Amino acid sequence: MESLGIGLIGTGFMGKCHALAYNSVKAVFGDVPATRLEVLCDVPDDKASGFAKQFGFARATSDWKDLIADPKVDIVCITTPNKVHKEMALAALEAGKHVHLEKPMALTMEDAREMLAAAETSGAKTIVGYNYLHNPAMSHARKLIAEGAIGRLVHFRGTVDEDYQADPELAWTWRATRADAGLGTLGDLGCHLVSLATALVGPMESLIAETKTVHATRPVGDGTGERRAVENEDIASALLTFENGVHGIISTSRSAWGRKSYIGFEVHGTEGMIIFDQERMNELRLYQNRGALSEQGFKTLLTGPAHPPYGQFVPAAGHQLGFNDLKVIEVHEFLSAIAGGRQAVPSFREALHFEAVIHAIARSGETGQRVSLT
Amino acid sequence: MESLGIGLIGTGFMGKCHALAYNSVKAVFGDVPATRLEVLCDVPDDKASGFAKQFGFARATSDWKDLIADPKVDIVCITTPNKVHKEMALAALEAGKHVHLEKPMALTMEDAREMLAAAETSGAKTIVGYNYLHNPAMSHARKLIAEGAIGRLVHFRGTVDEDYQADPELAWTWRATRADAGLGTLGDLGCHLVSLATALVGPMESLIAETKTVHATRPVGDGTGERRAVENEDIASALLTFENGVHGIISTSRSAWGRKSYIGFEVHGTEGMIIFDQERMNELRLYQNRGALSEQGFKTLLTGPAHPPYGQFVPAAGHQLGFNDLKVIEVHEFLSAIAGGRQAVPSFREALHFEAVIHAIARSGETGQRVSLT
Amino acid sequence: MESLGIGLIGTGFMGKCHALAYNSVKAVFGDVPATRLEVLCDVPDDKASGFAKQFGFARATSDWKDLIADPKVDIVCITTPNKVHKEMALAALEAGKHVHLEKPMALTMEDAREMLAAAETSGAKTIVGYNYLHNPAMSHARKLIAEGAIGRLVHFRGTVDEDYQADPELAWTWRATRADAGLGTLGDLGCHLVSLATALVGPMESLIAETKTVHATRPVGDGTGERRAVENEDIASALLTFENGVHGIISTSRSAWGRKSYIGFEVHGTEGMIIFDQERMNELRLYQNRGALSEQGFKTLLTGPAHPPYGQFVPAAGHQLGFNDLKVIEVHEFLSAIAGGRQAVPSFREALHFEAVIHAIARSGETGQRVSLT
Amino acid sequence: MESLGIGLIGTGFMGKCHALAYNSVKAVFGDVPATRLEVLCDVPDDKASGFAKQFGFARATSDWKDLIADPKVDIVCITTPNKVHKEMALAALEAGKHVHLEKPMALTMEDAREMLAAAETSGAKTIVGYNYLHNPAMSHARKLIAEGAIGRLVHFRGTVDEDYQADPELAWTWRATRADAGLGTLGDLGCHLVSLATALVGPMESLIAETKTVHATRPVGDGTGERRAVENEDIASALLTFENGVHGIISTSRSAWGRKSYIGFEVHGTEGMIIFDQERMNELRLYQNRGALSEQGFKTLLTGPAHPPYGQFVPAAGHQLGFNDLKVIEVHEFLSAIAGGRQAVPSFREALHFEAVIHAIARSGETGQRVSLT
Repeated sequence: MESLGIGLIGTGFMGKCHALAYNSVKAVFGDVPATRLEVLCDVPDDKASGFAKQFGFARATSDWKDLIADPKVDIVCITTPNKVHKEMALAALEAGKHVHLEKPMALTMEDAREMLAAAETSGAKTIVGYNYLHNPAMSHARKLIAEGAIGRLVHFRGTVDEDYQADPELAWTWRATRADAGLGTLGDLGCHLVSLATALVGPMESLIAETKTVHATRPVGDGTGERRAVENEDIASALLTFENGVHGIISTSRSAWGRKSYIGFEVHGTEGMIIFDQERMNELRLYQNRGALSEQGFKTLLTGPAHPPYGQFVPAAGHQLGFNDLKVIEVHEFLSAIAGGRQAVPSFREALHFEAVIHAIARSGETGQRVSLT
Repeated sequence: MESLGIGLIGTGFMGKCHALAYNSVKAVFGDVPATRLEVLCDVPDDKASGFAKQFGFARATSDWKDLIADPKVDIVCITTPNKVHKEMALAALEAGKHVHLEKPMALTMEDAREMLAAAETSGAKTIVGYNYLHNPAMSHARKLIAEGAIGRLVHFRGTVDEDYQADPELAWTWRATRADAGLGTLGDLGCHLVSLATALVGPMESLIAETKTVHATRPVGDGTGERRAVENEDIASALLTFENGVHGIISTSRSAWGRKSYIGFEVHGTEGMIIFDQERMNELRLYQNRGALSEQGFKTLLTGPAHPPYGQFVPAAGHQLGFNDLKVIEVHEFLSAIAGGRQAVPSFREALHFEAVIHAIARSGETGQRVSLT
Repeated sequence: MESLGIGLIGTGFMGKCHALAYNSVKAVFGDVPATRLEVLCDVPDDKASGFAKQFGFARATSDWKDLIADPKVDIVCITTPNKVHKEMALAALEAGKHVHLEKPMALTMEDAREMLAAAETSGAKTIVGYNYLHNPAMSHARKLIAEGAIGRLVHFRGTVDEDYQADPELAWTWRATRADAGLGTLGDLGCHLVSLATALVGPMESLIAETKTVHATRPVGDGTGERRAVENEDIASALLTFENGVHGIISTSRSAWGRKSYIGFEVHGTEGMIIFDQERMNELRLYQNRGALSEQGFKTLLTGPAHPPYGQFVPAAGHQLGFNDLKVIEVHEFLSAIAGGRQAVPSFREALHFEAVIHAIARSGETGQRVSLT
Repeated sequence: MESLGIGLIGTGFMGKCHALAYNSVKAVFGDVPATRLEVLCDVPDDKASGFAKQFGFARATSDWKDLIADPKVDIVCITTPNKVHKEMALAALEAGKHVHLEKPMALTMEDAREMLAAAETSGAKTIVGYNYLHNPAMSHARKLIAEGAIGRLVHFRGTVDEDYQADPELAWTWRATRADAGLGTLGDLGCHLVSLATALVGPMESLIAETKTVHATRPVGDGTGERRAVENEDIASALLTFENGVHGIISTSRSAWGRKSYIGFEVHGTEGMIIFDQERMNELRLYQNRGALSEQGFKTLLTGPAHPPYGQFVPAAGHQLGFNDLKVIEVHEFLSAIAGGRQAVPSFREALHFEAVIHAIARSGETGQRVSLT
């Protein structure tokens, strides 16, 4: 496989992130097929052509079906609003294209399941943008756990917070609606934490949760003083039971002042603890019950070449990877999987479990009842 | 009121802490009655007399009833194992003595309620050793909230962890039994967090919880290899609803490697956030949505004379109070209440609510059902 | 100016960093000429052709003069060992090519001055790889100072440390020689700190310094046990006087265990303080003597779109830039300068001052005398 | 020796700190003679009698000679302004009393030498209030160094900062005069850092320094707008050479906004590094080049019973000692020395070296010349 043609739908936060990643992955890693930035799609036309020029795509279109139909496109990147993910993904898969989809997969579990079925019928590969999974610090945490560095796991705690909906007077948008956005903080943030919890501890069995809309209405923003209802949750918290019997607790808020990209977790084991926080994404804290008590303490590991694939970016430790670098690692995983004829991780299959959990949290928040995931 | 005579039962961790606090409170604060260290009780006799000499008590006894009966004793400090709290407290109250009791009040809510009834019948004053409430950083957090510094409260998160039961091979002790210890981590640690949550947000209305014994058995430690069951919880977590509608989430573990005295909380408001961690007890972190976005961030406040009563200990900020200083502030509150003829805070009344919460968590952990606190 | 052709000499740490930056700058910023990766040079040939393919360069060569002579090349990036900087830079300038040179400019001030003279004679533009200057956190620190956020400056402190020469048994290399490496830690690390100090406080007037080689010899590494002398400094420290009268103190070590990329500074002003540390490159700490004393404290600012050009990379605060992103900002500065017909910052002119300082430190370290910089 | 009578001169910051320490040392440690709080001296009389009552002293006086003459007084604590230290110390020593003196010893080295001579002639014991030396974290740092935990020492860096003279409009006081205060930040803060540097690395051989008065005048504060000159330094920095050949760098400021009690140091060794900061006085950071590179990092040790004498205060790690506890440890050292017939550390002898260093820094700051300490 000499090279792969890329079609990108969407040019927002994630669209640009995909464009940058597909543009640099070969230079960073070397060991994957080269990529050709073939088609970029956005609306209207001039926006598409402007970004195509900036991002280095060969041509632009405002018709995503045109992009999917282009024979030069091997991989379709879908970075559009959640509610159109399904239609685009199904069309791309039907056209035999590999699909790189941003999270969450869809607004509902029904849709997500339909998408997985389509992917498994198709011969194409899929990956979903759970980018924090690809942080070398995270990979090292998983390696430490697998090696028994903290013993048998006994507890998990996690939070994921931002403050983009913290201001009570922020204007009402489509994000507040079930029809267009689906879930609130769970879909935006919570699912990322679930992806990490699953990678660290394993799949979940059941949970009981609470959800809360702390800003019940928001101003329409037209100067009339009119306010509209916020239909989805600002905050969600859950008590989790993992399949392996470990208990855990997670919480997420999009209304947490001061938190900009806080994705924190603690993994408690019988011989130590691991702590992480995405706002200091190049650090991992490790405590081990080893050696003299007087010299025990949490150690702050700065990621470096000893934590692959950090060294592909910078050959010296502590120099810091950034957010966009995580997408490059994700793209590397996808290209490697395609080249190797294997499924990428996380494909639609793994993502479906992550999203089952956030929907279960939402359902438990409504009913007050424990929800099983198996 | 010229001075007050002190009788101290117990000479362990908390016993020494009480002895030091009653010995220095007048020098630190000036504005309270002087204290006379009259009687110290422990068993056997020579232990009592040794510690009486060290701590500066006038006489020693191995009979706590003798201590309570001593007319020179005005305040009885009870720092003995939890299961004898009730008998001692009732006797002291019946003798008309003020009671300074270590937490938790008792092994069961029934006992705790009986103790409160006795206190309210008596004319004596009570206080319970929820010492972390008295940290100037904590008082300042409450003041900030009361002044609206972070707006309307919307969420609370807290954890309290230590690692004194983290080692799977630690020998089995009475702490593992329901009969002698009652609750596990909830009684040792969890109730402290509840005291802080209540002070910050208000009383709780209901909760649903999970509890877990992660080390099911422990070695008897006699070399036979025999292991005995651990009957109470190592870890407990709960989803909380406060009476004012705020939701929260708390978790506590006595098996959390690396945590030595971690009592952490986040209070989320519509205009900011406050964060605290007892392992850095002289710091309070405050975020406010004020001023230019480019200069917003979490501010680390180092406690100082601007945070009373810090200045009674040291007239310069940032010089650090210690754990034992919190007990001095607690004793100051008690002596002030006695001198002023008012109830101290937290008296048996407030403590009863704190302990109702930990028992509710334990019950919910057993039944899997939501438990109401009202 | 439609596009600019890039020739890159060197494929190591900095070579790859340049390749990535020139490959993505247009996509990140949009407002600069497109770049064409034309020629890559390394030795031997197959290394050059391998990296040309990986990095996306159109052709490869093992002859750097061939690269410079190529009419398609507009910008020559020099990322080779320091001792060949001069020859390559002079040749490129003579050929009328813009020069993007890695720091330090040269082994001696004489060479560096000759290079500046050539640049000023030439019509070409230059920039030197003082990449830490381009961190949005750093730019914000400068903006805060310029706006008077911390009042009149009164003191500067800085350190820059790594541990790549900390191990006493690390094998001897050319880095230990004056002939091939020139200065030690001053050339590798110290000059970066000088660039930041100058940007924050202004140019320096004089200094007195100490230098120290803490590992006097190193094993040759051939198994014979032979050791060779280390000819340049492991540690250097200096007392500085800036032209504006501010005093400062700086220190640098390449033998500082645990420091991976520590570039820290404190700027003290009459109304506040700013603190930074490159190992947490997305954070800036700011103290201001403003508002109630009880709410004063160091604020941790997480960089975001309010700190340009962060938002070109990620539209959400706190998501973290990485080390390689700084080079993209540097390249953006260079391309903007070329397109705008102005000098970039730092050009050879500014870099000459930075390097004058490190040579002055080395000289003072030898003589024990104060050295003037004016 | 059954007990020792205490006479305390001064009731300010340090006076209260001494009173509390002598009142609790026996209870905390047990293994020292009991203390009797006999005489307290301050002016005027009613201030003395008020504090005597509050602090628990048997009698009060406004005549310090009366206090020294009292046969019940065995130890004289001198916590008065620096300029009267000499007269009081000489009188106390002449009366055969042990002297517990606050730092610095005197305004000049001549006076300090005279005081040391008097102490060595006398049979009495002395100690000087370099309280930060007694922090268990500091003692552990020394132990780690002695055990070789970080290998051979190669470098030292330290800073000590506060902000009590940071405000340019703070009123002029006697602290600004050479006659009454002597040195500025060096006498208040710098000498503490010197005490730590000496304890960690050893005595110093020579230094070169700069000093700076950043606020040249201060308002008299009488409303006339008059300003008076500040005669001593706000900031001082020095390059140090220790007797063992290690180089170091120290800096101190009393005008460092945001620093409340910052005493920070780094000790660099061939196998690791130790970092400390008094604003987090219960933490010590340790890096060791041991084990897998992927698990190397700075470890944060929370002080506990494994770091004597922490356990005398609290039997559980991480619960935090406070500033006042350091004075209790200092008093314990003094009482142990007196009871054991040995010199305490630091006696006048060790203190003289610390103070020789700050005077050398001041002298070098004036002359611009290197100053020898041997």
